Amino acid sequence: MESICHKAEIMAIHDAMDVLNGKWKISIISSICYYNKRRFSDILNDLKGISNKMLSKELKELEMNKLITRTVMNTQPVTVEYNLTQYGKSLQVIIDDLARWGAEHRKVITGKG
Amino acid sequence: MESICHKAEIMAIHDAMDVLNGKWKISIISSICYYNKRRFSDILNDLKGISNKMLSKELKELEMNKLITRTVMNTQPVTVEYNLTQYGKSLQVIIDDLARWGAEHRKVITGKG
Repeated sequence: MESICHKAEIMAIHDAMDVLNGKWKISIISSICYYNKRRFSDILNDLKGISNKMLSKELKELEMNKLITRTVMNTQPVTVEYNLTQYGKSLQVIIDDLARWGAEHRKVITGKG
Repeated sequence: MESICHKAEIMAIHDAMDVLNGKWKISIISSICYYNKRRFSDILNDLKGISNKMLSKELKELEMNKLITRTVMNTQPVTVEYNLTQYGKSLQVIIDDLARWGAEHRKVITGKG
């Protein structure tokens, strides 16, 4: 088994984590993913403990990496809506797997596993 | 669609990311995962840019979260070997998905996608 070199896969994972790193990015993507579209205030409400400033920064980075789009809605007051791009939706499988794993993890650490 | 509440899934994902957060954890797990067992120096070599200090810290946290085990080998000089626990192996699906996504991502950003 040792002779096969897995450098390419490990590098690919590192590339993925470069885009998804940080405590909040995957949680933000999951919030938008589950509801199809999400306003700033909705995401803030979904993610206990995140600050306005952090959410703004993470959303900007996700937008720069073409995973989400930002739309200013012509409402009173103005609202800003976030959607996953087609590319962002390719993360759905990973989001679902993480949700399953996280739910199991909670059972293990609370001794209900 | 909006009426369904997804707070539980979003919280589960946040729980997962609490354990897997940081730039290196998932990459470290993937290195051990692909080779079944891995020495400290191997992992250092697999992950371009990680420092000794950072790798030690991340391995300790992964061990505390029961995702890996640490075995001191009776060799000259002494070597330390890391394995995934049964629990750690439950991350295999997420590792494979991230590798696939990361490989596609590289094609997209290098324009070969």
